[in-house]
Amino acid sequence: MDSQPTPTPLSDEQPLNPGAPLRALCFDIFGTVVDWHGSVAREAAARAAQWGVRLDAGAFARAWRAGYAPAMQEVREGRLPWTSIDGLHRRILDRIAPEFGLPLHDTPASAWEAFNLVWHRLDPWPDVRAGLAALRRDRVCTTLSNGNVSLLVDLARHGGYDWDAVFSAELFAHYKPDREVYLGACRLLGLAPESVLMVAAHPSDLRAAAACGLRTAYIPRPEEWGPGGPMEPSRLGEFDFTAPDLPALARQLGPAER
Amino acid sequence: MDSQPTPTPLSDEQPLNPGAPLRALCFDIFGTVVDWHGSVAREAAARAAQWGVRLDAGAFARAWRAGYAPAMQEVREGRLPWTSIDGLHRRILDRIAPEFGLPLHDTPASAWEAFNLVWHRLDPWPDVRAGLAALRRDRVCTTLSNGNVSLLVDLARHGGYDWDAVFSAELFAHYKPDREVYLGACRLLGLAPESVLMVAAHPSDLRAAAACGLRTAYIPRPEEWGPGGPMEPSRLGEFDFTAPDLPALARQLGPAER
Repeated sequence: MDSQPTPTPLSDEQPLNPGAPLRALCFDIFGTVVDWHGSVAREAAARAAQWGVRLDAGAFARAWRAGYAPAMQEVREGRLPWTSIDGLHRRILDRIAPEFGLPLHDTPASAWEAFNLVWHRLDPWPDVRAGLAALRRDRVCTTLSNGNVSLLVDLARHGGYDWDAVFSAELFAHYKPDREVYLGACRLLGLAPESVLMVAAHPSDLRAAAACGLRTAYIPRPEEWGPGGPMEPSRLGEFDFTAPDLPALARQLGPAER
Repeated sequence: MDSQPTPTPLSDEQPLNPGAPLRALCFDIFGTVVDWHGSVAREAAARAAQWGVRLDAGAFARAWRAGYAPAMQEVREGRLPWTSIDGLHRRILDRIAPEFGLPLHDTPASAWEAFNLVWHRLDPWPDVRAGLAALRRDRVCTTLSNGNVSLLVDLARHGGYDWDAVFSAELFAHYKPDREVYLGACRLLGLAPESVLMVAAHPSDLRAAAACGLRTAYIPRPEEWGPGGPMEPSRLGEFDFTAPDLPALARQLGPAER
């Protein structure tokens, strides 16, 4: 270590910022840990082939996901009573199915519900299993997602990785970016916000966490919305850490501070 | 399989009761998964030796634990506001320390608080790691404990085992045996109570779960209160399953039903 001023934390060599020791990491899931676009598009394409429907599976996956933020906003503003993500996904699916020519009314209810639950079977990004194992060695790692608890449990079992605890908006009856979610996670962890690191692919999520006093790690996932898809803009050095994947984040954090 | 009537489920060969498929297991922790008596007595003995105090470490561990049910009852009846288990343990410790000659007032606050947190470092019973790994292969396994979330996370990390999710009385602001705890776990799992198995060393916990419609597995832990210690009475065949340890329970349950 030399006495240079601390550089903007963008490289693997970046030492931990001074301050309270980091004890726990809370992970956003959709897009940050799991590849919803690729997973939904693959299953939609397979079902469309069975149904004999010609489908732009990528566009369908994006449309399904695009309905999600407005639906959550309806809940956040009280226009819709508390509804789990499974329920929101089903509302959106039923609305967009006719637009894409999918046979909503000719499909048995159980098969249609099974299709809705594709969001419980999303594959992790390739770096997640090894990265999470490395990060869990030194710090508590939990989910902090708008997905409901049973969905998050299913995703981890499907992907073959483990969490120390599964935290969800459902536990707080508030969706991110409501403060209740970030502060609720810190309370359950028994930690001050500055000892908790929010890990996400979405600058908006990280900004809301930072406003509650959490520290932030940005993991850009440029293919979240498919190849060439859009990304939320962010400023260089805006977050405490930026890493291309979870193993790189583990190297940046290093071992737990005493 | 023959056509004999279903026997009382007490042996390893017992097939699963007919009915809804079992999808998830919820585990009591203190006494069922971790050996609080042995763990607390070992740490108390080590600290007493450092302090130069002569201590009956087993009696001390039992006294600390014995304060727990009455303290929870105060919370359940509203005589004490919601207080985490860490807070309750600390109240009890401060009360019994003088009775056992422990140097409450001559010990630095941080060391005393570290002693209180021995309840975060309880060793699992020897069968837990292998048994839980076997049970998790086919079904979701969660905690369902009156211990607070961060304590349950610490116990699992200390003991080297993993849960699919950490459910605690803290999530529901009710302590077992309040119905809100058992039904809250089923709601978070997205399962009907008859698809959820409560696993515990305490008949009273199992009876409260059964009253909510959950199924029950009794794992007697005759040394929970130390060698020759007391056990809650129960009737033969009172519970859906009885097994001497977690690997035996895994054999009784067999693979997941379709």
